Amino acid sequence: MKHLVSIKQLKEEEILALLERADMFKRYGVKELPGKYTVSNLFFEPSTRTKMSFEMAERNLGLNVLPFESAFSSSIKGETLYDTVKTLESIGVDALIIRHPEDGYYEQLVGRTTVSIVNGGDGAGQHPTQSLLDLFTIKEEFGTFKDVNVLIVGDIAHSRVARSNADALKKLGANVTFLCPANWAGEFESLNEWGNEIESSDVVMLLRVQHERHTTGAGFTKESYHEQFGLTEERAKRMKKGAIIMHPGPFNRGVEIADCLIESSCSRIFKQMENGVYIRMAVLEAVLKGRN
Amino acid sequence: MKHLVSIKQLKEEEILALLERADMFKRYGVKELPGKYTVSNLFFEPSTRTKMSFEMAERNLGLNVLPFESAFSSSIKGETLYDTVKTLESIGVDALIIRHPEDGYYEQLVGRTTVSIVNGGDGAGQHPTQSLLDLFTIKEEFGTFKDVNVLIVGDIAHSRVARSNADALKKLGANVTFLCPANWAGEFESLNEWGNEIESSDVVMLLRVQHERHTTGAGFTKESYHEQFGLTEERAKRMKKGAIIMHPGPFNRGVEIADCLIESSCSRIFKQMENGVYIRMAVLEAVLKGRN
Amino acid sequence: MKHLVSIKQLKEEEILALLERADMFKRYGVKELPGKYTVSNLFFEPSTRTKMSFEMAERNLGLNVLPFESAFSSSIKGETLYDTVKTLESIGVDALIIRHPEDGYYEQLVGRTTVSIVNGGDGAGQHPTQSLLDLFTIKEEFGTFKDVNVLIVGDIAHSRVARSNADALKKLGANVTFLCPANWAGEFESLNEWGNEIESSDVVMLLRVQHERHTTGAGFTKESYHEQFGLTEERAKRMKKGAIIMHPGPFNRGVEIADCLIESSCSRIFKQMENGVYIRMAVLEAVLKGRN
Repeated sequence: MKHLVSIKQLKEEEILALLERADMFKRYGVKELPGKYTVSNLFFEPSTRTKMSFEMAERNLGLNVLPFESAFSSSIKGETLYDTVKTLESIGVDALIIRHPEDGYYEQLVGRTTVSIVNGGDGAGQHPTQSLLDLFTIKEEFGTFKDVNVLIVGDIAHSRVARSNADALKKLGANVTFLCPANWAGEFESLNEWGNEIESSDVVMLLRVQHERHTTGAGFTKESYHEQFGLTEERAKRMKKGAIIMHPGPFNRGVEIADCLIESSCSRIFKQMENGVYIRMAVLEAVLKGRN
Repeated sequence: MKHLVSIKQLKEEEILALLERADMFKRYGVKELPGKYTVSNLFFEPSTRTKMSFEMAERNLGLNVLPFESAFSSSIKGETLYDTVKTLESIGVDALIIRHPEDGYYEQLVGRTTVSIVNGGDGAGQHPTQSLLDLFTIKEEFGTFKDVNVLIVGDIAHSRVARSNADALKKLGANVTFLCPANWAGEFESLNEWGNEIESSDVVMLLRVQHERHTTGAGFTKESYHEQFGLTEERAKRMKKGAIIMHPGPFNRGVEIADCLIESSCSRIFKQMENGVYIRMAVLEAVLKGRN
Repeated sequence: MKHLVSIKQLKEEEILALLERADMFKRYGVKELPGKYTVSNLFFEPSTRTKMSFEMAERNLGLNVLPFESAFSSSIKGETLYDTVKTLESIGVDALIIRHPEDGYYEQLVGRTTVSIVNGGDGAGQHPTQSLLDLFTIKEEFGTFKDVNVLIVGDIAHSRVARSNADALKKLGANVTFLCPANWAGEFESLNEWGNEIESSDVVMLLRVQHERHTTGAGFTKESYHEQFGLTEERAKRMKKGAIIMHPGPFNRGVEIADCLIESSCSRIFKQMENGVYIRMAVLEAVLKGRN
């Protein structure tokens, strides 16, 4: 593949090949790519884990990384994303990792640039490397996706992760259930209160309450959200043996998840971050090789 | 040379030697410099193409690059540029690429520091590597500067590029004509409306309308500027066979240049950016070797 | 050692070993560490010299350096420092250099993360690598600490440097005297006006007047501070033969020190910055080796 803009573009076997390649990197150590490639991370929204994870993956592969500060670029003189990308194409960049607040920003780029585009998150749209690292973590845990019960809890409508994961998990044979406040469901069918699903779920995947996107009008305090929709200690105790907790981060301790659960034995939250580096190595390798 | 602060400091043969060296890099591939040099890019104004172009050139030469964020440096505690440069000299930096809003900022540095200074643009003053890449692009196209007709159009008074290029192009034998609104000419003699020059020009070099520097009082809307002073499709049709369009970027589509011309066959705008990397490699190599 | 959070944690022989190692790096040239380590510089306050000095030290040791922009990280979404550090631990970072406005921020980290922490300054607390480079510069000058008279002048209460240095210098056998306005002394005993100490001091160590921390109410203009507490030309003339001037930077010319003294023959201000790189190499090497 030349670009990775959405998990939807990947066939089942392509997903599995990326997971396998990530597993190779994890088991047998990192390895620099032959040849000299140059990439840059264009983040137009704040990020720690996605950006740092890509930075690490890039260095593990021995890539040249050009630093880009969106707040100090020609973007603030009104340059369009397309023109910025064409500029970077001209100076010889091979791939760009882009996070941008605009849904589907990549549609103006794909087919119009020779640079490979890796989507690091677009608005409330897709976040394919997050999806892949979630899949990797589930596969590592259960060995399969077939009939794994995944309960996704939180701000479904605004979550890139929910959308991407819903697509991919179903494609691979998992059962996905959504749980969220009624007005946060978007186009997805969802449960609107906790019930017995907690007892049959293999994966409880929590989403971040995005204070940035809807600070007002949601009608929740942190405490009331936690009580009504958060994974509390009590609810966690009802999880079945071997079930795991996932969260893409950054998490709000005591809001969507009880503080004490984050580093508990059934949490895979930091394992997800670790796995993200290997997934991004696999994706970068695939798009850079896909250019030749 | 130890510093490159202005195109004016270069003799004709020095310019030609740099262009030739850039051409070598372009033809035969990049090559790391022997020895270990450390540089840093001190940009006190936003930039994408100049900064990223230097970053790429530095990596192509295998230099150590120390990241510098002007907005998060001691500059905001009131440290002077001189003291910042002396600090970086002390920690072992070999060369600094500096963009700074103050005209002639380098005069307080040259002769007072052992660090090589490469001017990445000073206020409305000089921008020598932009000039060199423009010259490189013209030479690549026409093989010579002798009797090449260059028409420079736009905000002459505030343009670093216009000043630097006017100096150098004339020195090398080209004919330079300026075209701009009467009150934008500064000390330069200029045409104040489009005439037949478009038909005899080999190079139509457009400058950016700098909204940052004079947003009000210029008396233009984007549309009226385009109509009166922009390179419209109609005007471009009158260009002679083999003539080219240049622009230093970032460009305002539909203001100084019609949108459809930017990626047209006679445009060298993205070629200029590509050439900039090789020019900056040649300049960095020259100043770093010039230190020994 | 696995962390370096405070100069207080170091025994006399540990300090001397670090100074000796720095001296080796300075004499015999830099050398890349065997193995591949990854670090990141988390600066939550502006800095040029400390940050750039670490960046240089890291490259001299051949480390991978992941760029971190605090103003564009998940910190601004409310992520705690602890969670940021755990994230970076998960993606494989070996050591973090942290500057943070909160006194003793490292107490929430040490013992809870496998990442090595190097304190680059905490609020008005410690700044151990600054202390070490000051010690290195004094040792280089006098060959010993025994009975070296050090006069520390300025904003003692708010200075990390004063606190760290006071501890270490006394431990190593030097005599330390403080001089400052009466209400800037904090818990330290101090002189409140210049007297004959200037004539017996081997080291006059000036501190920065921190306009950021107390802009109002201190009752000084720049001129009156200079006259009452600054190192003026007149006072400098009374310094004994062989005595040196030190300042951690960034300095306010004409406030705590007369402009003409900064680059005078008895100033070691830029030498301190040079030495800082070697000290930081020694510290980074020690904590990275201390992990195994």
